[in-house]
Amino acid sequence: MLRNKLTAMAFISVSSCSPIIFSKSKFLSMSSERENRDCFGWAARDASGFLSPYKFSRRALRDGDVSLRITHCGVCYADVVFCRNEVNNSIYPVVPGHEIVGVVTTISTGVTDFKIGDIVGVGAYINSCQTCKYCNSDKENKCAKGITFTFNGIDIDGSITKGGYSSYIVVNQRYCFKIPDGYPPELAAPLLCAGITVYAPIIHHHMNQSGKSLGVIGLGGLGHMAVKYGKAFGLKVVVFSTSLSKKDEALEILGADEFVLSSDEKQMQALSNSLDFIIDTTSGPHPFEPYMSILKTEGTLVLVGAPGEIRMPPGSLIFGSKSISGSAVGGTKDIKEMLEFSAANKIYPKIELIPITYINEALDRLVKRDIKYRFVIDIENSLK
Amino acid sequence: MLRNKLTAMAFISVSSCSPIIFSKSKFLSMSSERENRDCFGWAARDASGFLSPYKFSRRALRDGDVSLRITHCGVCYADVVFCRNEVNNSIYPVVPGHEIVGVVTTISTGVTDFKIGDIVGVGAYINSCQTCKYCNSDKENKCAKGITFTFNGIDIDGSITKGGYSSYIVVNQRYCFKIPDGYPPELAAPLLCAGITVYAPIIHHHMNQSGKSLGVIGLGGLGHMAVKYGKAFGLKVVVFSTSLSKKDEALEILGADEFVLSSDEKQMQALSNSLDFIIDTTSGPHPFEPYMSILKTEGTLVLVGAPGEIRMPPGSLIFGSKSISGSAVGGTKDIKEMLEFSAANKIYPKIELIPITYINEALDRLVKRDIKYRFVIDIENSLK
Repeated sequence: MLRNKLTAMAFISVSSCSPIIFSKSKFLSMSSERENRDCFGWAARDASGFLSPYKFSRRALRDGDVSLRITHCGVCYADVVFCRNEVNNSIYPVVPGHEIVGVVTTISTGVTDFKIGDIVGVGAYINSCQTCKYCNSDKENKCAKGITFTFNGIDIDGSITKGGYSSYIVVNQRYCFKIPDGYPPELAAPLLCAGITVYAPIIHHHMNQSGKSLGVIGLGGLGHMAVKYGKAFGLKVVVFSTSLSKKDEALEILGADEFVLSSDEKQMQALSNSLDFIIDTTSGPHPFEPYMSILKTEGTLVLVGAPGEIRMPPGSLIFGSKSISGSAVGGTKDIKEMLEFSAANKIYPKIELIPITYINEALDRLVKRDIKYRFVIDIENSLK
Repeated sequence: MLRNKLTAMAFISVSSCSPIIFSKSKFLSMSSERENRDCFGWAARDASGFLSPYKFSRRALRDGDVSLRITHCGVCYADVVFCRNEVNNSIYPVVPGHEIVGVVTTISTGVTDFKIGDIVGVGAYINSCQTCKYCNSDKENKCAKGITFTFNGIDIDGSITKGGYSSYIVVNQRYCFKIPDGYPPELAAPLLCAGITVYAPIIHHHMNQSGKSLGVIGLGGLGHMAVKYGKAFGLKVVVFSTSLSKKDEALEILGADEFVLSSDEKQMQALSNSLDFIIDTTSGPHPFEPYMSILKTEGTLVLVGAPGEIRMPPGSLIFGSKSISGSAVGGTKDIKEMLEFSAANKIYPKIELIPITYINEALDRLVKRDIKYRFVIDIENSLK
């Protein structure tokens, strides 16, 4: 099922788009009014998902907006999902990318948080209602009216948002985040989606306590960051993977305490009732019951990717008062904290820096899971 | 599926029995040593589940034990499950009953909490390891080594525990609970399982805050108590049922704020994103996705019965950071608090008081859900 390949961000996008009525005529008329096409990007034009150069316009700056010259953009599975119309809501041309780092080039009136020259990140959403109780408590990712996704979302003027595979972007300062001094910008990019997606549930489930134990299902872009944060918080970290080829990397490079081949029933059973918390980063179907058995009494498994259908007997939860929860990215407060925590603890994603011209191969490799662990596009040096 | 009919207590029983090795020869020899057969009860002898009179022995009092002359015993669905061997672990003869109220007739050395003449309740378990972190924090129901179920469990001497459909019982004081003065003993009986099973998750999920909203799926022994506690805590309570016949009762007698026929899609959709918490008391299969949609962002559905297999798309949890959890009865601290809360707020189960001679008809009616809402056996006046 294609739907099984979704990441949490794909879910957010579907969710946030649906309640807003999109007026095509309004969009077209507004687009033609400001048709300067000074933004250069790469876009998918149809469900083949093939990306090629594309010129388009960005909105004029509103109060509180900053304009960023994009230097780097991480490649998330959501980019595949929307370029290839895997959830049937892509609005072409799709300019993907929501792990954006850039340099502030212009600030509008009312901008207090940034100055020209600052290195700034933008994540999976660029707007929210700013009035609901979630927005008012810095949980904008849970906005009651739905967030505006950084690409393939519908902006307040009816235009379709376009992401970070592009030369510049205009964003309200609330949804921009200062990259800590000295943190390499190419490494900061994946923090804006992969990083926050696994950091936020650790914090919200109070698992940032030394001595707790964390299971990480799947060792991709999200999973490898979960291992790094887990170790930084002093947790015992166990990696579950379907691929033995990830064992050495998990233990020796990422520093996990244990690696379990999830298809090995004996290894799985040996861990029965041993972990406080599990982060499930997978994007394919897998059984849930074995993982629920591995949780301790009162333990929680959090979905941050998009596995297949959840199926389990009720006893998996009732025995030992266990829980299964979902989580998607994080609020602005969480993102700021995550960036500071990453810098303070020298937590860096492991990336493969690529030119924009390599993006079609990169997306193919991402689908095949042939990446350790995140592609980052060197926009600054390759998007000409 | 028979397994679908389990209550949470049935789950506990299966769980708590399994890790303990049962020595049949030891049991037989010990039984014969103290074969006074002064306890009179009703037992099922085989999987027909038919109950008839049965004489047996209770253990001699150990340090800390009290002996109770049983006056009342509630009838839980677990009684059907084990009398009829629905989970293939019944050890006949089965003397069911774990909603026990009686009068203290004897106390052993070391008993500090009770005196002769006290009216005392016993619930779903009569022992636990008393040393693990859960026992040490009054969460004995989550004991790391498994609790000893009040009936069809394996006691520390290897004997099979026998429940409250009997004239007296011997229990360690830790697992006995003072019934508040003036609380009618026949009404106290269902609190010991049905009451605590729905009270504990409300407390543990911090839903005992006026203004919160509670959904209750199923209006039986557990469900009607959930409505009563919900209203006592000042919650908005919505009852979901498959039977319109329960509407007037739910609204007019139990005081629920709203009644929803769960098969009516329009009614269900109208409640989208409106409830903080849902307690699922059902013991049959039902879809989960509609209820997850009814939860607010960050809401939780707790299973306390045993519905069919849990099946839902991951988006049901990821959208809005929702959770599904399990819960089974409560610890000794919770039980004491629940009894005091019930008395202070005049919360009484609605019962049908029956003689023990009616028990076979009562179990048949329970299976057909033909009871509003709990049978209680008048042991004192009918078990002769």
